[in-house]
Amino acid sequence: MSFLDRLRAAQEASESFLCVGLDPDPSRMPSHLRTRPSLGEAVVQFNSAVVAGTRSSACAYKLNLAFFEALGAEGHRVLSRTLDQIPDEKIVLLDAKRGDIGNSARMYARALFEQFDADGCTVSPYMGTDAVEPFLAYANRAAFVLTLTSNPGSRDLQHRSVDGTPLYRHVAELVATWNEEGSGTAGLVVGATQTDHVASVRAVTPGLPFLVPGVGAQGGDADAAVRASAGPEGTHPLLVTSSRSIIYASGGRDFAEAAGEAAAALNDTLLEAHPEPPGS
Amino acid sequence: MSFLDRLRAAQEASESFLCVGLDPDPSRMPSHLRTRPSLGEAVVQFNSAVVAGTRSSACAYKLNLAFFEALGAEGHRVLSRTLDQIPDEKIVLLDAKRGDIGNSARMYARALFEQFDADGCTVSPYMGTDAVEPFLAYANRAAFVLTLTSNPGSRDLQHRSVDGTPLYRHVAELVATWNEEGSGTAGLVVGATQTDHVASVRAVTPGLPFLVPGVGAQGGDADAAVRASAGPEGTHPLLVTSSRSIIYASGGRDFAEAAGEAAAALNDTLLEAHPEPPGS
Repeated sequence: MSFLDRLRAAQEASESFLCVGLDPDPSRMPSHLRTRPSLGEAVVQFNSAVVAGTRSSACAYKLNLAFFEALGAEGHRVLSRTLDQIPDEKIVLLDAKRGDIGNSARMYARALFEQFDADGCTVSPYMGTDAVEPFLAYANRAAFVLTLTSNPGSRDLQHRSVDGTPLYRHVAELVATWNEEGSGTAGLVVGATQTDHVASVRAVTPGLPFLVPGVGAQGGDADAAVRASAGPEGTHPLLVTSSRSIIYASGGRDFAEAAGEAAAALNDTLLEAHPEPPGS
Repeated sequence: MSFLDRLRAAQEASESFLCVGLDPDPSRMPSHLRTRPSLGEAVVQFNSAVVAGTRSSACAYKLNLAFFEALGAEGHRVLSRTLDQIPDEKIVLLDAKRGDIGNSARMYARALFEQFDADGCTVSPYMGTDAVEPFLAYANRAAFVLTLTSNPGSRDLQHRSVDGTPLYRHVAELVATWNEEGSGTAGLVVGATQTDHVASVRAVTPGLPFLVPGVGAQGGDADAAVRASAGPEGTHPLLVTSSRSIIYASGGRDFAEAAGEAAAALNDTLLEAHPEPPGS
């Protein structure tokens, strides 16, 4: 099944556009978890509880590799055990932001798509086509290309004008060509803090999936982001991803329940904003 | 000791500008190594032999994380054991090309600089200042920013004209500002296949270290790359890195010896091209 078909099925099954971001920072996890025999075990417990608490209102999970790599030797096992907790029907994204020359990119793609069997990942466009192609060689997987990111530093390069058009728009045009070339799917990372600019990205990438970070802790407007990403008729695929506002909704023993409530509330906002919510 | 002082000491001790790139691809390793009990063990043996064979003519080693991550659960241990084989006086770079928003970038920096204790790493500039700052917060370490890469895809974005100046030159200017702000060192990745453009990068980043890939398998001209990177008086720091042309110089039982010969020959070329070779 293609990535887009899998995404649609996951969204209809859960009536959700929400991707819960798992960025497990041990310093922000509830203190009672830190009594586990190892830091890695505590992170597995935390992630498992967050997945269980949010699964009814999420269609996808995005695991941020930075937080697993920071665990050192335990990181790989903690990532694998977290993946085991995610229901099969959910979309799994690995937020890796990799980008390297062809023979190296093939190895990263192998790690993300073969070792971890992810449905999709994030990649960086700075090194150009040959850095992205190895990810697109995987049929039925998706590579979400950093296009217009949600952070303050997005102004440093992404908004610079190239021949009268912002760099991010040139990246979007490249992503459209990559989508035609690969058997996999090219998607785009388009930050919810940038809603004034999303329409111009969508104009050149109809039908391609957007991964939209930046709502919640980063301050993006979920409602506006959904409308701009989905288009006026709601025909374009999207996933809105939030991490900190969900997984740290409570720092106490009720963290999983609080995460579930935060996820449900955010998903309700997304469904209300979308012209064609799943199952409608 | 600052990164630049450590680099200078390593280069003087070994009379070398050469950084050997460890990109261990099991499919290209000598067949006799594949009888080892595990793939990971074979890679450790391969890397250890390459380090032993090349150490007399290399001042640095660059480990490409893609090739370790592709090993799956064994990758972390194989990377650690490879690092154990590198003499203390050598510079160790982790080629990770990471780049993410601030709180994620801090985790990547922790993984690379604390878990693995690398002297430096590579980072991507696409997400801007807050994606790089966490690496610069480490005193005495270096973050080499992808500026002008050696691959064909570098044409897709890096050479695009922003206000009449190529994007890579704007990145170089950013790197110069990052260097002033951090307590660590900002360096630049500048491909040896791009020697026509190196001087314009060097003009805005005097004194910052260049990591120069692309000689050997990628076809870059080592001699021209050294002259353009070091400047006419040889005053600017640089490391030339090559992987495949060294580590796969022979596919037979003599691979370590052949790697040593290839490394020595390349370093001789670098020393001849440089106006002020170490110890002169």
